[in-house]
Amino acid sequence: MNAPLTAPLLPDVQPRPVPPEALAALQARFGAQFSAAQAVREQHGRDESAFTHVPPPAAVVFAESTQDVADAVRLAAQWRVPVIPYGIGSSLEGHLLAVQGGISLDLSRMNRVLAVHAEDLTATVQPGVTRQQLNEALRHLGLFFPIDPGADATLGGMTATRASGTNAVRYGTMRDNVLALEVVTASGAVVRTGTRARKSSAGYDLTRLFVGSEGTLGIFTEITLRLYPLPEAVSAAVCSFPSVEAAVRTTMAIIQMGVPIARCELLDARTVRAVNRHSGLALREEPMLLMEFHGSPGGVREQAETVQALAAEHGGQAFEWASTPEERTRLWTARHHAYFAAVQSRPGCRCITTDVCVPISQLADHVTAAVAEADAAGLPYFLVGHVGDGNFHMGYLIDPDDAGERARAEALNAALVQRAIAGGGTCTGEHGVGLHKMGFLRAEAGEEALALMRAIKRALDPHDILNPGKIVAG
Amino acid sequence: MNAPLTAPLLPDVQPRPVPPEALAALQARFGAQFSAAQAVREQHGRDESAFTHVPPPAAVVFAESTQDVADAVRLAAQWRVPVIPYGIGSSLEGHLLAVQGGISLDLSRMNRVLAVHAEDLTATVQPGVTRQQLNEALRHLGLFFPIDPGADATLGGMTATRASGTNAVRYGTMRDNVLALEVVTASGAVVRTGTRARKSSAGYDLTRLFVGSEGTLGIFTEITLRLYPLPEAVSAAVCSFPSVEAAVRTTMAIIQMGVPIARCELLDARTVRAVNRHSGLALREEPMLLMEFHGSPGGVREQAETVQALAAEHGGQAFEWASTPEERTRLWTARHHAYFAAVQSRPGCRCITTDVCVPISQLADHVTAAVAEADAAGLPYFLVGHVGDGNFHMGYLIDPDDAGERARAEALNAALVQRAIAGGGTCTGEHGVGLHKMGFLRAEAGEEALALMRAIKRALDPHDILNPGKIVAG
Repeated sequence: MNAPLTAPLLPDVQPRPVPPEALAALQARFGAQFSAAQAVREQHGRDESAFTHVPPPAAVVFAESTQDVADAVRLAAQWRVPVIPYGIGSSLEGHLLAVQGGISLDLSRMNRVLAVHAEDLTATVQPGVTRQQLNEALRHLGLFFPIDPGADATLGGMTATRASGTNAVRYGTMRDNVLALEVVTASGAVVRTGTRARKSSAGYDLTRLFVGSEGTLGIFTEITLRLYPLPEAVSAAVCSFPSVEAAVRTTMAIIQMGVPIARCELLDARTVRAVNRHSGLALREEPMLLMEFHGSPGGVREQAETVQALAAEHGGQAFEWASTPEERTRLWTARHHAYFAAVQSRPGCRCITTDVCVPISQLADHVTAAVAEADAAGLPYFLVGHVGDGNFHMGYLIDPDDAGERARAEALNAALVQRAIAGGGTCTGEHGVGLHKMGFLRAEAGEEALALMRAIKRALDPHDILNPGKIVAG
Repeated sequence: MNAPLTAPLLPDVQPRPVPPEALAALQARFGAQFSAAQAVREQHGRDESAFTHVPPPAAVVFAESTQDVADAVRLAAQWRVPVIPYGIGSSLEGHLLAVQGGISLDLSRMNRVLAVHAEDLTATVQPGVTRQQLNEALRHLGLFFPIDPGADATLGGMTATRASGTNAVRYGTMRDNVLALEVVTASGAVVRTGTRARKSSAGYDLTRLFVGSEGTLGIFTEITLRLYPLPEAVSAAVCSFPSVEAAVRTTMAIIQMGVPIARCELLDARTVRAVNRHSGLALREEPMLLMEFHGSPGGVREQAETVQALAAEHGGQAFEWASTPEERTRLWTARHHAYFAAVQSRPGCRCITTDVCVPISQLADHVTAAVAEADAAGLPYFLVGHVGDGNFHMGYLIDPDDAGERARAEALNAALVQRAIAGGGTCTGEHGVGLHKMGFLRAEAGEEALALMRAIKRALDPHDILNPGKIVAG
């Protein structure tokens, strides 16, 4: 691994050896659900981050029930073996890499929708259910679950990273939409947090503590989510702008006016070009806002008219409607593929992704500075943003074998993140800390807050077996 | 104290003696900001709960700055003296009572609005600012802060109890609207959590852990809140129903249809009568929904028409508008005084309040069972509910010197809360645990979750000096 990534971003730890007796005990308990095959281990030792050289876990256990998870953790605890939960491998910051060795606990077979309470607008799922799978199961009921990261991630992984996506500006993030959890803790105990009530003041908010804990405090085995009625009317619109700044300033005006926009996505010209090629679209290759409005037919029309007027004030052109479901699906599918479209635009590349969120009054400054720095550095990149939240991503497309490109990308990333922190924002809006952002978390939270996080980690996982070496390690 | 309240609801602990040296050290540091006068101590030793016989704190410190809070906690820590933060004394479940002795730390003088970032829709306040004070400071900016418990509580207290109120159905609770905190921890350290960004995935959600911790994990010295643009149009409506059940079923239909109603309040006939007398109104003394709609003029009209049609299907009558600001203010002020109106309807009484929140499909059953039981018990009571959230309150108005009445009220409360827990709901939607709900929290959360809460408490407050004996004690 190259210097700019390893120091200080990867903690200086050695993989702990996994005792053969521990592997034997896991194999005895799990039989065909246990694998130490090289290919299986390697598949569970990589994600979408730029870290490519961390050794894979020593073995993989495929859990099929809460009991399986509890037994796997209990055996691991007995031998002090790290356990890393695994959903679908779409994390972006190195969350699931086995930096201290141990086993991967694959939850993808726990993929049942356990209950849908349509009248209460709640559903309970196993952690391996993906967001698209859940929405398939809900559609006939006239309901949906709004949180939509780019990948078709598992709801377990989305809970673990406090994920959000394009709808968060209207519907909130996983923080707001997880009502209750069943969690296996570091001792193998099965704990329930929260209830199906919409709100509660009953004691410490354990649910919110687990949401975003990235597998370091417990492993989710059931997740109860808030659902929403499918809106009566939906319309999408695209609008092109003379500059990224003009698009961002339009967004700021929309939010400050309180327009209840459901989605407000920024793509820069390069990203529109990649999306056009990848998804066979013919969007104008200029900075673009891709928006969606939810409500009654009259309400949707009214929102769109307000937004169109605001866009025009900032030089927005070619405001176009996508009112049929097919057109809308095509646009949003293309948007969800933007990351992969960009990565495929440079064959063989790895992507170093950034993800910051800033107070919205500063958004235009942060985006334009990031673009100027990336242009000056001469690296290929893409820019997308859930800009209604003040959240945006740059992805620097690097040759993984070129240490110079890595260093330049990391320097761009560091400058952008440090600027966000200095401006009262956060080093990650939705991707999480994983390995890559540990140094930035320290800068953002400060030593005192980090000490509290470490105290909580020690209290809940005294032997440091749950996804060790992430978030607060060191 | 009478048996039904003390056992098992009050833990069996003795007030710890406060060493005279500790009081001397506090007095030396705080001078005129320190008081051991009987009247001051007694004022800080009572709240709106039914607990009337707990001895007051040994002294009161009036903090005027973060440094004051840190110094008071550091001195208290040195002598292992309990510290109980105090805002305005409006808590309902015994949160601030000095069951283990110690000092009260009065934060009401820390009442400055430190910053309003209108473009970002955020404000930073000291903990002694009240919700009305904040809204006064915001009005000229066209902004508001929606969370509104019945009392004009302090934002510190509201954060500590994870408060909500009438607007939560649309705008969420304190959980959703606190972005960041400055907190003095048990060691006297000053910690900042969260940022001014609207969302974040940066590490453990310390902000959400502190929100609702009722002074047991840290003392808030700055609170950063989300604000909202005042809606373009607002209209309120009242509608009378033949039964409480019909009103509740109307609410269920409104929520299940996804109408973005801003307020949806239930009052039973008795409570309407008390409100009429207290506030000089002439509302029909029947079960009533008091509603409010926020949006554009067209959107508000549309929502109200939908709701009126749903109400009519359930026998709703006399759907009346309050469209002038004066009429609306009069109605909502009356609603906010409902608790005090009810308490004043029986001179000399104390109120044993309940506060449960259930999945909305069960709301009608829970409300009707609670009403039937209260009618059968023959105690005066009132019923109000933030029913759009599935949250409702009964208040039993008892003679505090009549052990029989206390016992009957506690039995009604216990039956109602246990039914809510059994139905997948929570023992408190917004009032918090304090002393009164500790037994119910155990029933709701289970021993395993309670053990996690205790582990967190021990990790963050190893000497148990922050509001000890509450939430998870014992």
